[in-house]
Amino acid sequence: MSVVPVRTIAELRERVRVARRTRAVIGVVPTMGALHAGHGSLMERARAECGFVVVTVFVNPTQFNEPADYSNYPRPLEADVAFCEARRVDIVFAPAEAEMYSAEAQTSVNVGEVAEFMEGHCRPGHFRGVATVVAKLLNIVAPDQAYFGEKDAQQLAVIRRMVADLNFPVEIVEVPTVREPDGLALSSRNTRLTPEHRRQAIALHEALLAARARILTGERSATELKRVAAEVIARYPAVLLEYFELADPVRMTPVEGISGPVRLAGAIRLGDVRLIDNMLVSV
Amino acid sequence: MSVVPVRTIAELRERVRVARRTRAVIGVVPTMGALHAGHGSLMERARAECGFVVVTVFVNPTQFNEPADYSNYPRPLEADVAFCEARRVDIVFAPAEAEMYSAEAQTSVNVGEVAEFMEGHCRPGHFRGVATVVAKLLNIVAPDQAYFGEKDAQQLAVIRRMVADLNFPVEIVEVPTVREPDGLALSSRNTRLTPEHRRQAIALHEALLAARARILTGERSATELKRVAAEVIARYPAVLLEYFELADPVRMTPVEGISGPVRLAGAIRLGDVRLIDNMLVSV
Repeated sequence: MSVVPVRTIAELRERVRVARRTRAVIGVVPTMGALHAGHGSLMERARAECGFVVVTVFVNPTQFNEPADYSNYPRPLEADVAFCEARRVDIVFAPAEAEMYSAEAQTSVNVGEVAEFMEGHCRPGHFRGVATVVAKLLNIVAPDQAYFGEKDAQQLAVIRRMVADLNFPVEIVEVPTVREPDGLALSSRNTRLTPEHRRQAIALHEALLAARARILTGERSATELKRVAAEVIARYPAVLLEYFELADPVRMTPVEGISGPVRLAGAIRLGDVRLIDNMLVSV
Repeated sequence: MSVVPVRTIAELRERVRVARRTRAVIGVVPTMGALHAGHGSLMERARAECGFVVVTVFVNPTQFNEPADYSNYPRPLEADVAFCEARRVDIVFAPAEAEMYSAEAQTSVNVGEVAEFMEGHCRPGHFRGVATVVAKLLNIVAPDQAYFGEKDAQQLAVIRRMVADLNFPVEIVEVPTVREPDGLALSSRNTRLTPEHRRQAIALHEALLAARARILTGERSATELKRVAAEVIARYPAVLLEYFELADPVRMTPVEGISGPVRLAGAIRLGDVRLIDNMLVSV
């Protein structure tokens, strides 16, 4: 592979077109860069399943609802390219903002109910930005398979909904969350935690484990399970709980009583760092 | 070609995939059926430029803002298939509504300012339905070229905007409006006019011609040109003028004074039949 990232849509398309001639299966791993082992796991899965792997690195402005979160988002492009190279990725596509959004752009992709609750509620416009940029990337790369992490479970549900509703000819592949030894889900935002906040950041994972344990021993009330989660998180004084929810795994709408597989999901804040995590529980 | 229309997305995709193996250029002509010489002109252009031509026949429910207009819309499928066959179309894709929209569908494509005025103003939700179904058809057919009529000029501008903003890898081809000998633009809705209404339906075309003539002799005020158009239309007592507008040909926003190419566009009603027409004037 070339260590020089591809910067333009035209060049990316030409490179993919050539690869497709050989009938290679094309895989894409869309990322916002600041790559870590979670992204690595997506790339390894793509590398195993596809003849040609494109990693996109683009910090998409339209999915940030907080300007500070956007400007603080890490952008270590050189390290990201080396990270991709080490995983035998074929192309890193790292377009500038102006290559992705013209000044005249005015189109958005809106997904309904699946984008309403949890992250959709806390981050207005976030999933519109996600759906729109993923639609663009799917049209630019024209992949056979696209890889996304379970870590962003609602994002995955939104993208699955969009792909089905708009008939994108792509298979969405879900890859399990990668965690630190203490259980913290890997996130590019973890690097911004102070040492003390890093220690307390496991609160959300602990809350998920506690709620799961209660479900597996028979608890079926969402109200009670949210109480259990809040109790766990209250043990970590630096942690602010934004939400802890139990949702239908496909529709991502809150459930009151558990009668089938359920996605437990939450968001917390430590200082100005916001973290999310989730867990699928089958009963 | 097969005279049997293709009914499923899976079969359509398989047929296009086979055609693509021969490196044929794939063209699509999206229609709502009730085909007339205007559609014929799109097909002939596609046939001349493409190795493989798909005509889609689908009365898209989401773009109708009036239930009666949707239920009254003609659906002569057998005649439409024969029409396509006579023009050497390779495939007629005529999916049922359930094949295009699942009960769980909740995604829409929204185009901004270009969809706000004129038809966008008079038909709330219309262009959202158009943009969404065209996005679906582009993903289903994966054409190299897509053919649309100048008759629906704002629709064309909306689709061009969407294709650019979402990076659909397709070339949009604009085909001139086909008219009856007296100037009336062909439309599937013309068949629903009474003989007297048919006679008066030329009012809009006459108004467009009158406004154009005034521009070509120096008039630059949109207000004055709208007055001229309204005066022409007032001569036809059965005609109700919905709007007559002068718009930027790309952005489709109203202009006050003319300083470059301008799209004149209007909508009228005759009984319960609504007709539109337009004309590009360069100064």
